[in-house]
Amino acid sequence: MSTFDDVTEQVRRESALTEEVIASFAGSTDDRFRTVMESLVRHLHGFVRDVRLSSAEWDEAIAFLNKAGRITDDHRQEFILLSDVLGVSMMTVGVNSPPRSRATESTVFGPFFVEASPEYERGQDISRGMSGMPCYVHGSVRSVDGAVVPSARIEVWAADDEGFYDVQHADQELAGRGHLFASSAGEYDFWTVQPAAYPIPHDGPVGDLLTAARRSPMRPAHIHFMVSADGYKTLITHIFVAGDPWLDGDAVFGVKSSLIVDFFEHPATSAAPRGRRLDVPWSEAVFEIVLAPVD
Amino acid sequence: MSTFDDVTEQVRRESALTEEVIASFAGSTDDRFRTVMESLVRHLHGFVRDVRLSSAEWDEAIAFLNKAGRITDDHRQEFILLSDVLGVSMMTVGVNSPPRSRATESTVFGPFFVEASPEYERGQDISRGMSGMPCYVHGSVRSVDGAVVPSARIEVWAADDEGFYDVQHADQELAGRGHLFASSAGEYDFWTVQPAAYPIPHDGPVGDLLTAARRSPMRPAHIHFMVSADGYKTLITHIFVAGDPWLDGDAVFGVKSSLIVDFFEHPATSAAPRGRRLDVPWSEAVFEIVLAPVD
Ligand SMILES: [Cu+2]
Ligand SMILES: [Fe+3]
Ligand SMILES: [Fe+3]
Repeated sequence: MSTFDDVTEQVRRESALTEEVIASFAGSTDDRFRTVMESLVRHLHGFVRDVRLSSAEWDEAIAFLNKAGRITDDHRQEFILLSDVLGVSMMTVGVNSPPRSRATESTVFGPFFVEASPEYERGQDISRGMSGMPCYVHGSVRSVDGAVVPSARIEVWAADDEGFYDVQHADQELAGRGHLFASSAGEYDFWTVQPAAYPIPHDGPVGDLLTAARRSPMRPAHIHFMVSADGYKTLITHIFVAGDPWLDGDAVFGVKSSLIVDFFEHPATSAAPRGRRLDVPWSEAVFEIVLAPVD
Repeated sequence: MSTFDDVTEQVRRESALTEEVIASFAGSTDDRFRTVMESLVRHLHGFVRDVRLSSAEWDEAIAFLNKAGRITDDHRQEFILLSDVLGVSMMTVGVNSPPRSRATESTVFGPFFVEASPEYERGQDISRGMSGMPCYVHGSVRSVDGAVVPSARIEVWAADDEGFYDVQHADQELAGRGHLFASSAGEYDFWTVQPAAYPIPHDGPVGDLLTAARRSPMRPAHIHFMVSADGYKTLITHIFVAGDPWLDGDAVFGVKSSLIVDFFEHPATSAAPRGRRLDVPWSEAVFEIVLAPVD
């Protein structure tokens, strides 16, 4: 039997706790830190209050985070996956992406980036024997005003034709990833293999969450890019392979139509770009990169 | 230069992402799971939007969670600490605690519970050689209607006089914790040592968070209780030592005035309760436990 007064008192106590916790951050001299923590506390408390979280559900949440911690290592980033499947990663990308910027759009960083990738010359093959159809990617780097951006650093990483990144293979030898520099005229090109759609790693707690939601872990085929140049905002994005059946159901909500690129298929030839002779079909993707200047 | 239309478009895109993520949970047949996930997504997205989270801050958040995962093991529960210092634990306790229930109030579970504690007879000393002033705790277990609750299971755990739990000592031998059963008349008693105020473990990321906020990691001295009996809601609570200087600044917001108990100090005596002869002063605390029936 809860009376009107009981409800009023309950609401008062819950609000008082939120204010008490927020006040505990008041001693920080870092304005931004205080702003972020205040908002985090308000939203987390709002969540607990709105759903009337049970203590059994709190136990489950703690157990989930413990499991995510236990499975995480240098090559398995369960907290990134969690952020990705809850759309928190794409929301972070979104709030940092002004609409109608003429710059190339951003998307999720994902869990498969590796620091210290090998460096390549323009035109080299970064696949290092990964399985898949040879794929030639080229384009240029420009500023939103159309000016050439010379010598941008272009970092790329992608899965093979079975949908696995190098770091997911038992030997974990780096392949299908590297960095190169655009020319002084802003041009770049490299060979790799055409990537396949893949499931995000789903043998951990994030996979259990997807299963509970009856959600697919699949991501449409893509190549990751991170492009940086002095005076420009670093661009983190992908190109997606046009026609991929998962473009409308990306497990991490990363697809933007401007990032879907045709991967043209060519027949075998003795005169592929960069002097390659190929006795198998190969594909070609053009990706023109447009960077926004730093504010 | 953002125009009114740009702002409208930005808001539209952000809202659309939240709805897309929520829709991804629509396939679950578990209503409660859908409700919880929808609210979680809304509040997390609301947080990212409100603070305009930068990608560097997102990186920091992921690094924080990774660190918390790395330090967590069977005896170190960093995610519980995080929930505790953000007041999420106490909010969960709060939404499950009707106001003006006549039952004993609840407080945080904390990170130091251990499954499978030793069992004791009533009146025994559970301290197992822990350092501190001998402390005799007794009381009874009743229902909100005043009726005796016979044979309740009473689990207790507490720190020693230096503020450390058994599991924080190098040898990690269990001490200062155990369970016993109240008598058929609802009565219970045990000996332990009077606990001291202590800092929550603060050599990990949660400690760094407290430092950044200039918050103290201290908790006022207390003894944890978990009391269960058939037909009653399990009670998770503490008793706090009256007069403790940290009662007004508990790092985890756990203090409720109804849980503050006098620990009376007695001189050395050859006739302490349960036939103990003590050549040092000892203390006595009375804790009357009132359980609420299950709904
Ligand atoms: Cu919120
Ligand atoms: Fe990827
Ligand atoms: Fe404690």
